[in-house]
Amino acid sequence: MSGKDGMNYAPQGKPRPVVEPGRFVIAAVALDHGHIYGMCNGLTEAGATLKWVYDPDPAKVDAFRKKFPQANAARSEAEVLDDKQVHLVAGAAIPNLRCGLGLRVMDAGKDYFTDKCPMTTLEQLGQAGSKVRQTGRKYMVYYSERLHSETGTFAGQLVRQGAIGRVVQVIGMGPHRLNPAGRPAWFFRKEQYGGILTDIGSHQIEQFLYYTGAKDARVLHSKIANYRWKTEYPELEDFGDATLVADNGATGYFRVDWLTPDASRTWGDGRTFLLGTHGYIEMRKYIDVARDTGPDQLFLVNDKLEQSFSLAGKVGFPFFGELILDCIHRTENAMTQEHAFKAAELCIKAQNQAIRIE
Amino acid sequence: MSGKDGMNYAPQGKPRPVVEPGRFVIAAVALDHGHIYGMCNGLTEAGATLKWVYDPDPAKVDAFRKKFPQANAARSEAEVLDDKQVHLVAGAAIPNLRCGLGLRVMDAGKDYFTDKCPMTTLEQLGQAGSKVRQTGRKYMVYYSERLHSETGTFAGQLVRQGAIGRVVQVIGMGPHRLNPAGRPAWFFRKEQYGGILTDIGSHQIEQFLYYTGAKDARVLHSKIANYRWKTEYPELEDFGDATLVADNGATGYFRVDWLTPDASRTWGDGRTFLLGTHGYIEMRKYIDVARDTGPDQLFLVNDKLEQSFSLAGKVGFPFFGELILDCIHRTENAMTQEHAFKAAELCIKAQNQAIRIE
Repeated sequence: MSGKDGMNYAPQGKPRPVVEPGRFVIAAVALDHGHIYGMCNGLTEAGATLKWVYDPDPAKVDAFRKKFPQANAARSEAEVLDDKQVHLVAGAAIPNLRCGLGLRVMDAGKDYFTDKCPMTTLEQLGQAGSKVRQTGRKYMVYYSERLHSETGTFAGQLVRQGAIGRVVQVIGMGPHRLNPAGRPAWFFRKEQYGGILTDIGSHQIEQFLYYTGAKDARVLHSKIANYRWKTEYPELEDFGDATLVADNGATGYFRVDWLTPDASRTWGDGRTFLLGTHGYIEMRKYIDVARDTGPDQLFLVNDKLEQSFSLAGKVGFPFFGELILDCIHRTENAMTQEHAFKAAELCIKAQNQAIRIE
Repeated sequence: MSGKDGMNYAPQGKPRPVVEPGRFVIAAVALDHGHIYGMCNGLTEAGATLKWVYDPDPAKVDAFRKKFPQANAARSEAEVLDDKQVHLVAGAAIPNLRCGLGLRVMDAGKDYFTDKCPMTTLEQLGQAGSKVRQTGRKYMVYYSERLHSETGTFAGQLVRQGAIGRVVQVIGMGPHRLNPAGRPAWFFRKEQYGGILTDIGSHQIEQFLYYTGAKDARVLHSKIANYRWKTEYPELEDFGDATLVADNGATGYFRVDWLTPDASRTWGDGRTFLLGTHGYIEMRKYIDVARDTGPDQLFLVNDKLEQSFSLAGKVGFPFFGELILDCIHRTENAMTQEHAFKAAELCIKAQNQAIRIE
């Protein structure tokens, strides 16, 4: 669980339960991506009772139960889905299988909380949308680079307070460490991981929609490349970018890559810049490069002040408690279904229309 | 000359003359933009002898001679152009008049050093190129955000040493303070200033070509907007961006804007990010936001180290001495004519093909 390994980076917060033990029962199914740890940290800290874990690979289940011993090892996915006590299934399947799992979860009458990207094709998005309408269940997404970031959360609060005026542009940089030896085979197969814009680009488009307060957007341009790893991993894309315009006139640009250099102390020097008509915000989420200030640094400049904030441990992750309450009360305070799906749709469109650079 | 005012930001360096006094004689003609001060600082520190100044506005000439008392006030542009001693004319005319001045300067057998942007239309670019071929004179450009930046200069040295492998992407952010009360009328007239991508975008495209080592590039997408000042200044563009691909496969994105908020201690928190296959560089040229570290901070992360550099006063501005020697020896070490014109061409193309956002 080193900070240098993004796949197994699982933020921990302070427990802030929103429900009594046993009131909101969850299960973890499909442990293909390490994000499942962060997802279960967030939900259990917010009061969820983790009753089950299931994966066809017993080694993954054993490792998971070392961290979450309260989770019973189910004998099958069906054993979890048949349990009427379970309200929500959290899953981190291989990306192109995430939708299939979600459909089964919703058919079983449960809400679904999947690692991003929530699916890899527009066809799957259509199926997920139909199933949500048919069952009334939720298909929520762990867009961790905002939801599980105290800096990302605080920035949202500042924007809502009007701290920088109207947000007119979001620039995101999402570098990631490849760490090839630690990656499963599916990670390098395009059909399975879905492409770099669909995969790690999903964090960026979600943030663009959120911080600009947009309901919809158009992808104006996008591109992909494999600059460094073409020989070893021909189906990998180690670079992708896109620019969008939102329905409210705000624009966005982001770059994602798998080029974090070896000596970096973090898996990725993720940055987000919000440009407003009356100020700007910079987030240095995971590291303050070449400084010992720690992660979660936010910089706010507006017409009144130029100030830095060191936010680690100070903001918490309200998303998870809000999600639990949303599931109980059938509200949409944590995230609307429309927003979760719109981010996914735009990522897949950005991926599909990307031009390839050599 | 406050650091909060970009138009009159004139970097000063240590004198490092490359020639004896009187060996390289220059004149300043057309003082419309405050950059003329930085241009003359750079050239005189490198050993140029500033003999003349001319502008039709005597107030501008008087102000200039307070800073450069050695410059004689010429009675006309012709008096400067007729002086056989003058090797080079430095000019900061209104952007759409910069080419016309350059043509007259080259016709008089002198090299020309203009503030960026060097021209505002492709037609002017064609005229400038023809005149360069016809006269053999230089039409050099003060792309100050690299040439007059110790951070920008040092970054070039690191890249040439291979510190980050192959440079695959450049992201530039060029925010500027509008400071409307201090601006002349031409600043708000599109035909005269040329559009935001032509104007302050020129710094960005020049840096993109330079740091990627590209000879040519294509503009893939660009956009402009006037988010904040539409009522007061309808012809202003306060936002512009573009993405390009170079002939060597590297890509670039930049954003420029006139939205620096009031409380910022600088005229613009300019940033440049160079992404390489084996490392990255971040430049914080004018401020280390919300910190007291001073300007000219550079961050280098590669496979061996993660390090910051505080560069103010440590690198100097070698461009100006190289330019003087280029003019004397008819070499192209400071900057090639092709590079200077290519940056201009791409800016104008980015401007011409930009989509307008509301």
